[in-house]
Amino acid sequence: MKRRDLLRGAGVAAVAGGVAACAPGRDAPGANVRIERHWKLVTAWPTNFPGLGAAAVRLAEAITRASGGRLQVSVHGAGELVPAFEVFDAVSRGVAEMGHSFAYYWQSKLPAAPFFCTVPFGFNAQEMNAWLHEGGGLVLWRELYAPFRVMPFPAGNTGVQLAGWFRAPLPDASALAGLKMRIPGLGGEVLARAGGAPLNLPADRIRQALADGELDAAEWLGPWNDLAFGLHTAAKYCYYPGWQEPGATVEALVNADAWNALPADLQAIVTACCRAENDATLAEFTARNQSALDVLVREHRVELRQLPDDVLMALRRAADSVLENLAGSDPMARRAFDSMRVFAARSRAWHAVSEEAWYAARA
Amino acid sequence: MKRRDLLRGAGVAAVAGGVAACAPGRDAPGANVRIERHWKLVTAWPTNFPGLGAAAVRLAEAITRASGGRLQVSVHGAGELVPAFEVFDAVSRGVAEMGHSFAYYWQSKLPAAPFFCTVPFGFNAQEMNAWLHEGGGLVLWRELYAPFRVMPFPAGNTGVQLAGWFRAPLPDASALAGLKMRIPGLGGEVLARAGGAPLNLPADRIRQALADGELDAAEWLGPWNDLAFGLHTAAKYCYYPGWQEPGATVEALVNADAWNALPADLQAIVTACCRAENDATLAEFTARNQSALDVLVREHRVELRQLPDDVLMALRRAADSVLENLAGSDPMARRAFDSMRVFAARSRAWHAVSEEAWYAARA
Repeated sequence: MKRRDLLRGAGVAAVAGGVAACAPGRDAPGANVRIERHWKLVTAWPTNFPGLGAAAVRLAEAITRASGGRLQVSVHGAGELVPAFEVFDAVSRGVAEMGHSFAYYWQSKLPAAPFFCTVPFGFNAQEMNAWLHEGGGLVLWRELYAPFRVMPFPAGNTGVQLAGWFRAPLPDASALAGLKMRIPGLGGEVLARAGGAPLNLPADRIRQALADGELDAAEWLGPWNDLAFGLHTAAKYCYYPGWQEPGATVEALVNADAWNALPADLQAIVTACCRAENDATLAEFTARNQSALDVLVREHRVELRQLPDDVLMALRRAADSVLENLAGSDPMARRAFDSMRVFAARSRAWHAVSEEAWYAARA
Repeated sequence: MKRRDLLRGAGVAAVAGGVAACAPGRDAPGANVRIERHWKLVTAWPTNFPGLGAAAVRLAEAITRASGGRLQVSVHGAGELVPAFEVFDAVSRGVAEMGHSFAYYWQSKLPAAPFFCTVPFGFNAQEMNAWLHEGGGLVLWRELYAPFRVMPFPAGNTGVQLAGWFRAPLPDASALAGLKMRIPGLGGEVLARAGGAPLNLPADRIRQALADGELDAAEWLGPWNDLAFGLHTAAKYCYYPGWQEPGATVEALVNADAWNALPADLQAIVTACCRAENDATLAEFTARNQSALDVLVREHRVELRQLPDDVLMALRRAADSVLENLAGSDPMARRAFDSMRVFAARSRAWHAVSEEAWYAARA
């Protein structure tokens, strides 16, 4: 029996373990049965993958616990039910009721998608949350996914990432010419526009390719995950900051039919648990990244270097061009880009006198 | 009938509006009644006060909705049930089951309390969340409140505040001598140590005292709330960044007996809704502050100025001394201060190459 059929049947009976009870909300009137729903959550990462894999499990457990077991969410890692890059389709078709992934994975289908995850030289986590929830971003994102019967919820953020690991120093922008770097997505497009040669290797091949000299450089994520991958054993120079992904939003996806079949209280539980996880993922990345950086610097004597100004300027110019082209290619990408730009102007002005000035003041 | 009696009675019956049903969790076995709990949430701010007052209402509504009405939370603003500064005691005594306030209000009773809200030159919001949830902060905070039968939950953050409004420019640290400034709490202690004359006026008197010259300067919160108070009409110079409160954590307080009487699913709902609100409050402050700053600068031609380096250094030295004294005065304050310092060292190193470098790179 397909999950969707089971879900559709759930409105009728499904009495649980001897307890005759009634869920509040839409199920309540007249009914005297305890309704249990079972949702599958498919992820774009392996089960228990540090950070993102664990976050998916935490989200599923939180919903199950808060619903008192009325909505039981089981987690299925990449490749278990569907491959990593079929999470969106699986939720759209109802093969799974939930997904946990990054929106920019769906760029080939939905050009606007990266704006709802992270774009080169875009928002950091705090700005992204403000834009999504208070600046119209989430409304646009829901509109983008609606034709696919998928509802997105912001459910985490990695924070600012690292720019990557380099075998040789990067003295100035001329060194970008021909640079063979593992960097996927829009970051890769930007590097190409700036003269580099981006490659997208699967995660498990990055370290060796870097060690062998097949790559000159590679970006993965941040100290916590990069340390686990051993990237510091393959390249000596660690550059910052992560211009390519200054704060990637994790998305929780919910199938619209499954959502509409929920009583209001379970909808509120899913909403609250996703938002709670939005807070939790960032806190965990922040704490674990700083612990891992400490290990990289103290134990592994990693050489941390800031990207030279002219490198950042060259990449920034290239990013403006890549994003402008992306916006020009698709009406929703245009709307997302314009919305983000309006918000960004005010955001930069405020953060210049709050967060940014604060970091400078205490340095 | 007192609320506590009502609460104690709630375990027995309380059948709601004709619906015979059963809540899951501890209440479930055998029972065939729908149990409803009514909690009072008392706040340290007026009802519907922009930002913090609205956040308390949003939290109460989220819990009520996610619980399907099994846990109905009503909000009582400052002065309605208890005065603003009696929120902690009210929750401790069970007069109210929940509270919504700032931990630093309880410093006279609990010297360690400010560490769990914000301290001069302390953490910003992202660091505070990482320390509380991943660095041991929340464990210490719960230990601090436990003897009072109160459980704290982080439930919001204001983000970096403004340093305040000044009638005359602040050219250098010598101008701190005798400066009459409305600045309460530890910020006030720091200003006093640096030679200033802090005053703590009630919020509704600040603007007039500043306009009349009774005050030379005043800090309140950030652009959103300061604009609403009209502080820009009383002083021309707006200084940043808010060294005195670089990211104040809002606390949700829960009476321990009320908490223990909850079934596990309702405990999970309260936990998730507080954490969701932790995310929501910061996003709202971020978005509204930047909109308000735009109005202050464009429409009201406010003169924004960064605090001179030597002013910040003088205040920083004074803060070190004030915090060291505070830690020396009380064992729990010592533990909180030490825990924060260990975490801060790694946090500064990581944020220097992530958030801080990011702001610099995109400037």
